[in-house]
Parts: sequence; structure tokens; C-alpha cells
Amino acid sequence: MEVKVLEGVFDANRKKAEENRELFRRHGLLAINLMASPGAGKTSLIERTVALLKDRVRVGVIEGDIASTVDAEKVKAHGIPVVQINTGGACHLDAAMIHQALDHLPLPELELLIIENVGNLVCPAEFDLGESLKVTILSVAEGHDKPLKYPLIFTQTDALVLNKIDLLGMSDFDLDVLRRTVLTMNPDVAIFELSCRTGQGLESWAGWLEGMVRRVKSRP
Amino acid sequence: MEVKVLEGVFDANRKKAEENRELFRRHGLLAINLMASPGAGKTSLIERTVALLKDRVRVGVIEGDIASTVDAEKVKAHGIPVVQINTGGACHLDAAMIHQALDHLPLPELELLIIENVGNLVCPAEFDLGESLKVTILSVAEGHDKPLKYPLIFTQTDALVLNKIDLLGMSDFDLDVLRRTVLTMNPDVAIFELSCRTGQGLESWAGWLEGMVRRVKSRP
Repeated sequence: MEVKVLEGVFDANRKKAEENRELFRRHGLLAINLMASPGAGKTSLIERTVALLKDRVRVGVIEGDIASTVDAEKVKAHGIPVVQINTGGACHLDAAMIHQALDHLPLPELELLIIENVGNLVCPAEFDLGESLKVTILSVAEGHDKPLKYPLIFTQTDALVLNKIDLLGMSDFDLDVLRRTVLTMNPDVAIFELSCRTGQGLESWAGWLEGMVRRVKSRP
Repeated sequence: MEVKVLEGVFDANRKKAEENRELFRRHGLLAINLMASPGAGKTSLIERTVALLKDRVRVGVIEGDIASTVDAEKVKAHGIPVVQINTGGACHLDAAMIHQALDHLPLPELELLIIENVGNLVCPAEFDLGESLKVTILSVAEGHDKPLKYPLIFTQTDALVLNKIDLLGMSDFDLDVLRRTVLTMNPDVAIFELSCRTGQGLESWAGWLEGMVRRVKSRP
């Protein structure tokens, strides 16, 4: 009985996600679903990415939070379109929330849409938003054992951003173990090592993302 | 319809939680529900606490994880009873999982039971396990704005452990803002500032916990 209800929820979400995906396709828009634990650096990565790309790529942002508009205000200061979703307690975004938010964004003018999911390594992985790419951030402060403990999100993600590499000397984080673990679970994942605090490694990430935007735009 | 189902889930959980609470009461056992984001330091805090207290307090541990037994093996190395719960994908522990795990612990011999919840700042807060106290860890690496963004867990918690204070100089974490925010939401919370890495501040936390154990044991 409970399983049936859950399948109903996932089915409904899948349909709405397909509608979103079709909208993104029609507008030649790359949509990324950005997921991570609380405090891993989602908003910082968005701010850094927008600062690096905004003269070359037209970016919009959807901010997902359980409560507060702290993040949306930070991102809005960069002068780009931002929509805030407050989930009112829910631990992840779903495709219907995104569908509603899209009404408030100038889709024909955008090339890249960054969706910041709720801070959570578990539930967001289970809900397709219709995104073009999933991007997961892990921070050095969280430890290299996280992919083994939260396997779904690390198996599904298209890119893994390892943030806070300026803390590498301050902890027992083992970069080789992390790379080996993630690549065993997910051999096609693109891995970026960077620090939103110092700026190290950001060019390579932003370059990859811009390449992905161009690829989507050039599709017939 | 969906709401009804959820209420059914919460109702069933509440009943099972009361059974657990009664079991703990009968055995004069302090049970703590330890919650935090992935990587905030739940397992490290358990290891440090067990090392400090094990000659004075008889401790048992329930390790909740979505997958893997990494944490249970670390804790087991300290020579105390440990039971692993693998939730198989679920993003939180519930009272029925704890009830089952209790069958595998020598309850009459224990004085303190530490339950490590799944790494998640959202869902665990919604499920009463029957615990005596809720303890939440926030690490400096996560940022001082987290209580505003994940209000439920910070409002409910009996104690807040601020871990990784050795990183205070490495980030823009504002200790005063954190304290003010949390105490406004939750004026009775006990706050401990410590570093599981350096050991700083651990005695004060362990002393408080031991006092709580003694208080429960001395109840008629």
C-alpha cells in the first residue's frame, strides 16, 4: 500500500520532469540540478560561476530552500534573474515546483539555468527535475568516505565538484581514495577540484560548463 | 490523500517511539539521537565521547546509515556493543528501526545509548525515535547561516555541538551570529564548541553528557 503511493508520487514527478525537459529543449537551455549537503558550497559555487560566466553566458537561477531567502538575495546581487522556492519543510525539490518557478523566469533570454536543490545528500537524488545535468558538490570538510555512504547521488551525478580543497592539509581527506571510489561507482563522471574561497580550480569548472551550454545551443 | 498517508506514518512512528521511550525508562538508560549533515563529525564525536567516558559510563551505539558499515566498524574498535542499521535508501531512522535494533543490545548493562542518525539536516528531525535527548552537530565548515535554513532541527534540539572550531580562522564563520540565531530559535539549548580533531572543548561536552546519564539513573 505504502509502496503504491510512493510509486504514484514518482510517476507523477517523472511526467512533470519530462514537461520541464521539453521546455528546456525548446529554449536551447542547459539546466543543471545542483545538489550537496548543507554547507558544502552550493551558493558559493553559483556566485563564483555567475561572476566568471555572466559576460559570456546568460544565466538564471532557481533557489530551493526549506525556509529563508538568504541564498536568493546573495545571488540576486549579481544582477541575474532569480526565483526562490521555499519547500515549506520538504527535503528536496520536485519537478512540479520547478515547473511553477519556470513561469517566473525569462526562458527565451536564458542559456544556462542553475537549480540549487535543498541541502541534502539523500532525497534530492530520487527526484528528476527534468534537468540536463546533475552536478553534486562534496567538500573536503565532509570526508572522502561520503560516496560509499550516500551511493545514489554519487552514482547518478554527471559532474562532481570537490570544493574547499584549501582545507586539504587540515584534515585526513584522501584525494586518491575519493577519486578511486567515485570512478568505480560512476566511471563517466567529470571531477573538478576547486576552492570557492580562494578561487583555485574555478576556471576549469566554468570552462567545462560553458562548453556544455554551447553544445546544447548548437543542437538542431 | 497524500497528507492522510503521511499522518498515518507519523502516527505509527509516534506509537513505536513511546514503546522505545518506555524501554529506555525501564532500564534507566539515557538515549541520545545524534543528528547532523554528512561529514559534520557524528562518528568522530561518538569515538571521542566513548574514549573519554567508557571507564565511567557503559555506552552502546546504534549506527544508522543508508549503506555501508564504515562507521560501525570504527566504533566497534573501541570495544563497546554496536548495532548497524542500514536503511536501504531511506533518509532517516524511524522508531521501528530502533525498536528492532534494541533486540540486539544488552540493555540492562547499558547506561548511555548513542544513536547515530543518517547524515541529513532535514528528515531525521521529523521522526521521534523515543530518545531522551536530541543532539545536533553543526560544523564550522558548513557556515553560520544553517539554523535559518534548516530551522526544525535547530529549534528542537536539546544540545548543539559546534564541531571543527579549529577551522574558525579559515572561514567567515561568525560565532556570535550563530549563537544569537540559535538562542533566539531555541533559548534552552546547550551549546558546546569543540574540535574532534584537536580535542579542544571535548571535556565540557563529555561532562555534560555524563551528568545527564547520572540524572536519568537516579530517577526513582
